[in-house]
Amino acid sequence: MTYCVAMCVDEGLVFLSDTRTNAGVDHISTARKMSVFEEPGERMLVLLGAGNLSLTQAVLQELSEPTGPSGPSASSKPTLWTVQTMADAARVVGQAVRDVHLREANALQEFGVDFNCSFILGGQIRENAESGNGAGQSRPRLFMIYAAGNFIESSRVNPYFQIGESKYGKPIIDRVLIPSTPLDEAAKCALISMDSTLRSNLSVGLPLDLLVYEKDTLKVTRFVSIDQDNAYYQMIHRTWGERLRQVFGEIPDPDWQITGDVPQNGHVGEMMLYRPPGELHADAERGTPAVDARPAQTLAQADKPKTRG
Amino acid sequence: MTYCVAMCVDEGLVFLSDTRTNAGVDHISTARKMSVFEEPGERMLVLLGAGNLSLTQAVLQELSEPTGPSGPSASSKPTLWTVQTMADAARVVGQAVRDVHLREANALQEFGVDFNCSFILGGQIRENAESGNGAGQSRPRLFMIYAAGNFIESSRVNPYFQIGESKYGKPIIDRVLIPSTPLDEAAKCALISMDSTLRSNLSVGLPLDLLVYEKDTLKVTRFVSIDQDNAYYQMIHRTWGERLRQVFGEIPDPDWQITGDVPQNGHVGEMMLYRPPGELHADAERGTPAVDARPAQTLAQADKPKTRG
Repeated sequence: MTYCVAMCVDEGLVFLSDTRTNAGVDHISTARKMSVFEEPGERMLVLLGAGNLSLTQAVLQELSEPTGPSGPSASSKPTLWTVQTMADAARVVGQAVRDVHLREANALQEFGVDFNCSFILGGQIRENAESGNGAGQSRPRLFMIYAAGNFIESSRVNPYFQIGESKYGKPIIDRVLIPSTPLDEAAKCALISMDSTLRSNLSVGLPLDLLVYEKDTLKVTRFVSIDQDNAYYQMIHRTWGERLRQVFGEIPDPDWQITGDVPQNGHVGEMMLYRPPGELHADAERGTPAVDARPAQTLAQADKPKTRG
Repeated sequence: MTYCVAMCVDEGLVFLSDTRTNAGVDHISTARKMSVFEEPGERMLVLLGAGNLSLTQAVLQELSEPTGPSGPSASSKPTLWTVQTMADAARVVGQAVRDVHLREANALQEFGVDFNCSFILGGQIRENAESGNGAGQSRPRLFMIYAAGNFIESSRVNPYFQIGESKYGKPIIDRVLIPSTPLDEAAKCALISMDSTLRSNLSVGLPLDLLVYEKDTLKVTRFVSIDQDNAYYQMIHRTWGERLRQVFGEIPDPDWQITGDVPQNGHVGEMMLYRPPGELHADAERGTPAVDARPAQTLAQADKPKTRG
């Protein structure tokens, strides 16, 4: 598997990807999942891919073939180098996915291989003075493109996308990220999300590619490939785990209290309780759970943090 | 979906389950996923189920039919009430799953419905003085039973099992839980794991059933059904999120440094960079990424925590 995450905040974009590929535990390798399309001052696009590596690479080949201004089909087919908006760029990627699907899907299906790939595309394209709407600089935008070639755009209520092994690293992003989050803080959030994923899932691995794009620069200004020797990542890895355990320790343990009420059927406190059939328990003999007749319990919040040594 | 987690620590067992069931967003309902089989002083077993609700309930019916000492088939078929060890209890559940599979799987397959169910079984059975090995009290044990009826047992290196929507809540357990974790602290860990899952996944929902079993009591001593009014869960929900954001804020943001080295092919710092085909860039014209010729960057750990206001 793979884990890639990209964020669109007010100050710019953050892209982070791991580099592990695997086809079963016997075939683990390293592959770049982040590709950068840069024409400094004109456009800066980043593509993250997850899924079957032969498919994501095939899409990348479709996109990187030189069919630009000097190519033979320059006028007939838009490319990432010729499109004027990020939405058009997402359409180009979607079309590349569909072209690969047309060529590959049937052959793969004969071997029971799903057409499994998805992409995140983000970046910014300088607004053309002639064709533009006069609003000046276009804004950085972020898209998620599915295997069917359709796509969605991020928004202020959903300022990030994940592809691949996304669930482990989702809770921390949900708790922290909003559009006004500063760019480097968003990068930190992405790295912590990745660290949680690495810790819980073997199929995601170092090194990581991190690209932080500052709005309106229209070029790559911050990129780093993070391996196990990276001091900052080491610090995040160590500190986040330590502090998490510390916070965990400071939260009071549950304090069990007997409320004394005997719960009625359907009440909070009732459990699905089965008793041995030998006992005189009408409900249990019919195979349905007995109503629990013991005092209900509740959990109270302790008045102060626990002081366990 | 569902999220259930159970832990086996030195002091006993913790079981936690949500109660949401859904078949598409239009069919969301509430169902108990925790069942308790208790014969005070003799045995205390807890079964958590996830998957297709009609299947988990069918398995439960197989298990709760009164075929005990007074039933007709008492001597021929072991039940949860007659088995002498927890491993035998897991076998009884596995056999019930296989019985249901035999009866249901083909009919379901005609409608394209997978035979999708899994269970966690934990508890303790008093050791029979006559048949026992003389080691006295048996210990609490925890098993995970798959849809095929096979099962695995927890261990000291893997002291917990999850079923259902498990990934969101896995990182915090991996960071915190060890066999020596006190019982109530393990319960707290389970609740935080559940809280992270609830926040990131709509298909898991309140109320929660929490059962904490103290080793060697052989009965249910602590059980609570937690709804949105539960003070302790409210405190966990609020405090954990707040403190997480606080810890996040205290970790220094990345500090970008230009190392000045021009990276070579394959070096850390190189990115998969594509340039427009018009530019004289031999690599790009062949459709392969250019070697990036800009100074490499790195992330340094800031010397002190950031002091952002």
